Amino acid sequence: MPTAPQILADIGGTNTRVALARDGIVDRASIQRFANTAHESLPAILHTYLGAAGLTGCSAACLAVAGPVRDGVAEMTNLSWRITEADIRAATRADRVAILNDLQAQGQALDRLRSENLRTILPGTARAGARLVIGCGTGFNAAPVQRTSSGLMVPPSECGHITLPVRTEVELRLCRFLERDHGFAGVEDVLSGRGLERLHAFITADAGREDRLPAAEIMRLIASGDAAAQRSCDLFTTLFGRIAGDFALTHLAFGGLYLIGGVTRAFAPYLSRHGFNAAFRDKGRFSEFMDQFRVVVVEDDYAALEGCAEYLAPAKAR
Amino acid sequence: MPTAPQILADIGGTNTRVALARDGIVDRASIQRFANTAHESLPAILHTYLGAAGLTGCSAACLAVAGPVRDGVAEMTNLSWRITEADIRAATRADRVAILNDLQAQGQALDRLRSENLRTILPGTARAGARLVIGCGTGFNAAPVQRTSSGLMVPPSECGHITLPVRTEVELRLCRFLERDHGFAGVEDVLSGRGLERLHAFITADAGREDRLPAAEIMRLIASGDAAAQRSCDLFTTLFGRIAGDFALTHLAFGGLYLIGGVTRAFAPYLSRHGFNAAFRDKGRFSEFMDQFRVVVVEDDYAALEGCAEYLAPAKAR
Repeated sequence: MPTAPQILADIGGTNTRVALARDGIVDRASIQRFANTAHESLPAILHTYLGAAGLTGCSAACLAVAGPVRDGVAEMTNLSWRITEADIRAATRADRVAILNDLQAQGQALDRLRSENLRTILPGTARAGARLVIGCGTGFNAAPVQRTSSGLMVPPSECGHITLPVRTEVELRLCRFLERDHGFAGVEDVLSGRGLERLHAFITADAGREDRLPAAEIMRLIASGDAAAQRSCDLFTTLFGRIAGDFALTHLAFGGLYLIGGVTRAFAPYLSRHGFNAAFRDKGRFSEFMDQFRVVVVEDDYAALEGCAEYLAPAKAR
Repeated sequence: MPTAPQILADIGGTNTRVALARDGIVDRASIQRFANTAHESLPAILHTYLGAAGLTGCSAACLAVAGPVRDGVAEMTNLSWRITEADIRAATRADRVAILNDLQAQGQALDRLRSENLRTILPGTARAGARLVIGCGTGFNAAPVQRTSSGLMVPPSECGHITLPVRTEVELRLCRFLERDHGFAGVEDVLSGRGLERLHAFITADAGREDRLPAAEIMRLIASGDAAAQRSCDLFTTLFGRIAGDFALTHLAFGGLYLIGGVTRAFAPYLSRHGFNAAFRDKGRFSEFMDQFRVVVVEDDYAALEGCAEYLAPAKAR
């Protein structure tokens, strides 16, 4: 009798992807996508998935959740889903259950990424050292990936909530505009989907008429060459480059920076042309030092699932 | 015959402290201090020390160096000393030689600190998680201290060179003032001994007459109640609190923040009253979240030596 497969799930704000893995290898043909709002809970999705696959249980389960994970419990702020190890164990009959934050899962996947799925933003000269995953999507976060004798370590972070690093008069006015919401201008208040909406509202308000548009519409305006949207794009990519440079120094990420997330992917064609690269390097006497850091955008939709499989791989048993 | 002792050294910008350890315990009676300028090299100091102690060699040597360490070589920027493992091995006859950055050494010491040597700045409610060492002295740097199965891990950082987190008009003018030097206003350009001098020059220039004073004189003026120096103190402690809060979030340092370094020690009496605590907590909707982090100032002159001893302790053999 073959061993029962492992079940993997990548739970985003909108969709959940589920897959099976055998011997640490993700079966890409097994990947299915579920709309979260069409299901009452994650265990319900897993139950449906396993039933359709003709399986009664799995040997292990690993989830990547777009939300904070503490003591084996994940909170999905957008969905009011509360995901617990006990519920997943009951739904999958798995002996071993692990719930990772999506950033941790992406960090676990780094050794599995293929070069054709990496878009180079800055080539860098260094290769050895800590790697850094930076996620910009529904929210913003970043975490270093350290090699230890017991596998990869991806410590948790809340760096999306640190001070927005501003350097100019117009950026300071942006802070004033953002502070109206909750008295503080953090990184995520600009570098996220809703952040982009706020940024564009500020750019248009600063020019006299505030436009509140959804992020997808702003991306369309950027692509069409709209002047105000171009200014939003310039400032977004500049702030992204500056904070990425700050994190490269903070974590001394000589192993490279890996940019992930839906908003990052949408901005990937604009990063280098619109200010990311210049801002990344704009560190005074440390500008040459910055040339050591490689920066790539990860363009693999299944990286989080790969990270879950890596986490369950036998050599990395925890 | 008893085993040969271990030799430890803490090499600062001005002085070097040398000590012996036996079985991982620092012999505090053996600690001696040497003025760096009175000696041509670190091996010369170690040779003098061992000769006076009637020793011909040691079983192991561990150094804490106030400067970057890469591939077993430390560069002392202030002294033009280049310290190599090979030279230390030759001078001490030690089989095992380790050269740590001083921040790494302080991180290794955390489990050895006594509560009477910790001055509480913010009590915090959390205790379990990564700890963070923040050093402010000749330079500025910070590093998380992570527990791993093979001991404490203190990854290197260059976070003293990230963007100074400014939020007000006057702070933006400070950036403009600092950018005259090298086109960029970094954290260390304010939060260090020379940074304090620049900050006070800005504060006085902003009021009409630029005063270039040495840091020790500025500290005397702060203690005497001088109005301009009080403003420098307010802004210094505010920026220190803000960046400490940012790093607490970046490293999710639920295990606490440990502030070290000569400038930190000098400012310790002023931190809470002058803006550190308010700025640490001033994170909008994350303000309550910040109450979880404990912040202390380490007031133990020999912490780096203890960290060196810890690093050499048998259980932590690398």
